[in-house]
Parts: sequence; C-alpha cells; structure tokens
Amino acid sequence: MTDHQLHHLGDFPLQRGGTLAGAHLAYRTYGELAADKSNVIVFPTWFAGTHEANEWLIGEGRALDTSRYFVIVPNLFGNGLSSSPSNTEPPHDRARFPQVTMVDNVAAQHRLVTEQFGIERIALVTGVSMGAGQAYQWAVSHPEMVERIAPICGSSHTSPHNQVFLEGIRAALTADSAFADGDYPDPPRAGLRAFARVYAGWGLSQAFYWDRVYEQLGFATLDDFLTGVWEPTFADWDANNLLAMIWTWQHADVGRTPGFDGDTVAALAAIRAKVLALPSRKDLYFPPEDEEWNLRHVPDAELRIIPGVWGHLAGGGSDPAAAAFIATALRDLLAR
Amino acid sequence: MTDHQLHHLGDFPLQRGGTLAGAHLAYRTYGELAADKSNVIVFPTWFAGTHEANEWLIGEGRALDTSRYFVIVPNLFGNGLSSSPSNTEPPHDRARFPQVTMVDNVAAQHRLVTEQFGIERIALVTGVSMGAGQAYQWAVSHPEMVERIAPICGSSHTSPHNQVFLEGIRAALTADSAFADGDYPDPPRAGLRAFARVYAGWGLSQAFYWDRVYEQLGFATLDDFLTGVWEPTFADWDANNLLAMIWTWQHADVGRTPGFDGDTVAALAAIRAKVLALPSRKDLYFPPEDEEWNLRHVPDAELRIIPGVWGHLAGGGSDPAAAAFIATALRDLLAR
Repeated sequence: MTDHQLHHLGDFPLQRGGTLAGAHLAYRTYGELAADKSNVIVFPTWFAGTHEANEWLIGEGRALDTSRYFVIVPNLFGNGLSSSPSNTEPPHDRARFPQVTMVDNVAAQHRLVTEQFGIERIALVTGVSMGAGQAYQWAVSHPEMVERIAPICGSSHTSPHNQVFLEGIRAALTADSAFADGDYPDPPRAGLRAFARVYAGWGLSQAFYWDRVYEQLGFATLDDFLTGVWEPTFADWDANNLLAMIWTWQHADVGRTPGFDGDTVAALAAIRAKVLALPSRKDLYFPPEDEEWNLRHVPDAELRIIPGVWGHLAGGGSDPAAAAFIATALRDLLAR
Repeated sequence: MTDHQLHHLGDFPLQRGGTLAGAHLAYRTYGELAADKSNVIVFPTWFAGTHEANEWLIGEGRALDTSRYFVIVPNLFGNGLSSSPSNTEPPHDRARFPQVTMVDNVAAQHRLVTEQFGIERIALVTGVSMGAGQAYQWAVSHPEMVERIAPICGSSHTSPHNQVFLEGIRAALTADSAFADGDYPDPPRAGLRAFARVYAGWGLSQAFYWDRVYEQLGFATLDDFLTGVWEPTFADWDANNLLAMIWTWQHADVGRTPGFDGDTVAALAAIRAKVLALPSRKDLYFPPEDEEWNLRHVPDAELRIIPGVWGHLAGGGSDPAAAAFIATALRDLLAR
C-alpha cells in the first residue's frame, strides 16, 4: 500500500557534477487533468515534509480546488520518498548522497510533468518555504511554461542569515557523536532533539511565544511545547536526509540557473509568470524584506504579507487566519 | 598577577535553597571613590564575559568617565572569575553547581558595595544583556539605593522566546556526548562549536548578514566569519560555566524578587530609579517590544532604541555608531 507514485528518472545528471544513479521522484496527484491540459498546478513540498503536508490546501472547495484543477505534488529530493540518502543504493547512500540543487529538483519535476503527463503549460506553481524556492526556480527554469507562481514564506535565494540559521541546526545535529559522519547504526537521537530545540526558536516568532499561543494550543509549559511538538517533528527523520535537504536549501539561488552565471537579479527579471509572493510578517528566516527585494526585480509582481504572530509557520496551515489569508491570495491569483 | 579583586562572601545562602559554600565575587574598580561616596556606578557583566568586556565604556573621557566616577564591575556568578562550576570545590563543582538567580547575584553585589566600600547610594547601574537584567534587579532589590539604571539590550525578565533560544544553545552544547553530563575530562569541542554556530544566527540581525557587514569586517565568506569570530568566542569557555549562566538567564524575572510573588508588573512599578532603556532595533532575543512593555510599568522611564543592523551585538561596542548612541544616552542620563 502506498499513497504515491514514482517517476523513474534513470541515471540523472546533476548540476554540480556527477549522476544520481537510478533516481526517482515520488509524487501524488489530486483531481483530474483536463482534456486540454490547461488546469495544472504544481505544488512542491517543503523541508522535512512530504506530499501529505501539502494536503491542507488541496481538495474540493479548497484554494487548490480539485473539482477544477489537477494538482501534482512532487516530493523534494532528500525527503525520504524521492531519491534520498536513506533510499539510494551504495555507493551514493547515506552521507555519500550527492549534492542536489534546486535546479536539479525542478529539472526532475519538469521531466515528470512532461514525460508522464505531456503537460506544456502550468497554471500555477506554489509552495511553502523550500517549496517557494522551487516555485521561483520553476519560473526561472521554464519561463515559457509557468503562468503564475505563489511563493509562500520563502525566497528566490537563501540569504546569508538564513544560511547561518541552517549552519546552526546542522551543527546541533552533527555535534552528537552518534551521528558518526553519517554512518550511524542507530539514529543520533540527542542531535535530533537539539536540532528540534534550535528550530523551535526560529520556526515561530518572538510574539508567538510572548503571547503564549502555545498555551492556547493546549501546552501548559514551554517545555511541554518543545517536547510535544518540536521534538516529534524531527525525531523520526533520517539525519542524512535532513542534511541533504539542508544542503539544497543553503545553496538555493535562482541566479545559479544555467545561463545566469550567478546573477540573481537577471534571473528574477527573466520571469514571465505573474508572481504573488506571500511572506509572513514575523518570519525569522525568510523575512518579508527579502521578498520585497525579490519583487523589485520581477516584471509582474504583487506582495501580500501574511499578518499574525506565527512567523515561518504561518505558511504551514496551523494558524486558521493565516491559512484563510493564503487561500484568498491563491484564489485571487488563479482568477487573474 | 591578576587584574581583579575578590570579595569573599563565606557560605552564601541562595534564593532557590541551599548554600554556595566559600563563595566569592570577582570585581574590578575604575576611578576613585569620592569622599562623600556620591560618584558610584555599578556595571555588571554579560553572559560569557568578564569585566574586561565592559571596559570599552569606561575611562577618562568615555561615557563612564573615570575622572569623575568610581566604576565597580562585578563579575556574574558562573563566569569563571566569580564563583562558578569551574572554580568551586566538590561537592558543588561542575554540573553540581547550585542554581543561582539574578536576585542572588545582586544580593552578592550589594554585599560587595556595602561591606567593601560602605556605599549607600549608587548614581547608576548599567549593563548589557544579562547585565541589563542585573540593572533591573538592582532597581527592584534596592529601590532606596539606586538613582538611575540604564539597561542595554536586555530586559527585566527573560521572555518565553528568549528561553527557547537558550534551550536551543543548551541542547546544541549538550548533544555532544563528550559533555558527559558535565563530567568531561576534555572539553566537548563539537558541542561548543555547535553552540557558537547556533548563537551566530541570533547574535546579529538578518539585515547584518544581508548587508554583508562581515565582509566589511574583513571576512571573505560566511564560514570565515563563523570560524573566525563565533567559534573562538565560546571555544575556551567551560561548558558547565556556560550552562550555569544560562540557567540564571532563563530564570531571570524581577517579579521573582522576594516580596513580589511572581508579579513582574508590581516589581517594575516599585522601581524608584530613573530608567533609560536602550534596546536594539533588530535584537532577535531581546526585541524592543519587550522593553516597551517593561517601561509601561516603570514610573520614571525613557526608551531610546539603538538604530542599525547589529542586532543584539549593538550593545557590545563593536559598532561605532551604536557605541556612540549608547555613550550619549548614558551621559544624558547621568546629567539628569
């Protein structure tokens, strides 16, 4: 029993060199592809998530309405369902998994969309956090194909501060000697707990904690919230998988798309899609200022800042007000 | 050879119970005590710092002008000079060092000031970060004695988000199995490096990194900055000492001063000193909003927000503009 399909990519060449042998993308689709293939939405996954984490936005009557749209959710390389350190054969398993970029992810997704479904136009690419980065990458890699993108709580490139944040969680995870350079027989549990506790400070805003929203969510103490929500969020993830996704995240930059030679501004200026960017007001690692900068360089761009205190997790669907704000924005963009 | 003195406290009773046997405060003084003892400034240290880290504000012609003022810098318990896990005899050494509060620190400093120098009035208590917390604590513990306080990049109590930030650095440090529950024969170096890398994201703002100020400081890459500045900042600290200071920080709250029964607002309202609070605009763990809240409850209060992108480190003296802003504020307060 599985709730997803695999698209086999064969020996998949990588942007940074080398090949991912026997690569595959895991994906799930929702709704029906129209006869003229005009109703396609691509909705890539975020860091440490699978297609299931996207389903709050998908369904009849929801923003990504399956009575009208055909939604494809491809899983990020490294997330344990698509090719990952945990499911790749030696010699490229575990810590020897190669460096996979955002460009690689979108190239694989392009193959899925064209080879499997014969799709030539995409009405919308949307995604949250690393999913937003993939949406930007789609618009740069395939400007002729993508009509709209809605990056949510993300950016076209990983800022220096965001990279430092990622260095911190990476260092916390690997400080556990049980990590053993990625060849752990048993999971580095202390490292995974430290990873989760560091993440907890970044994933939500100062104001979320100041307002004690965790108490409204049913947690009597801060420690209950850390051990009841944050530690389980990462406890069952494979450490090498997390690190593979972090590598992709740290090196994300549409300017590194072939042809742009590191020029992020030129890559943004080449976008032909309508862009509706949805950063969260109090996001600590994808702050709205970054998206304001991005959109200054995109020809057809609109910014809507998600209000509230949920910080980065405003994009996750747990805050009803933020979820409604996002749904309205997606409907508006699809109607344009 | 030593550049500081010790004030011996004997067996020092602690707020949370128990006794710190053979306790001492390390301190240094600058300038001369006036005959009428009217020229006293107390300037407690910050987390993972000693009196030396305060000296940028002290000296002839500087904001804390030693041609006029007598400046006493007491070292925080746990910082390796005052009683600490690293210098306390068994059975209270290392991880068995007792829980020391801000109230305890100020009680010890009060004994130093009164027993050693016979001081009855203090013109100013100022401090940065945990030093700011001690300034607030002085104003609440000894309202009859303290004329002015200038808390810089700190707060009267540690907010829930700040506590989560501290949980993160604590978890990163102790994820290293070399920590060995505090009984390490050799330092937990991987844990200390992880601690530093996590701290790097919090100590400065997103905008500091976005603007690549680290390049202006002479670091070619982010990694150079992390390994050249942040790792050395903590590499030589004793892990148990860091954890003892973090415990003090996490539990800081003037509302827990005896007589206030946890009521932070009542404690703030009892302050008789003139308060000039100096949070930094982009401080990620002592954001200005926290000080705005504090000052709503203090009778004689002024807020000046330090501009710029240096975040928490705006209080550290490395940003010339922030340092000048702080110096002006301290001079203005002392003139009132």
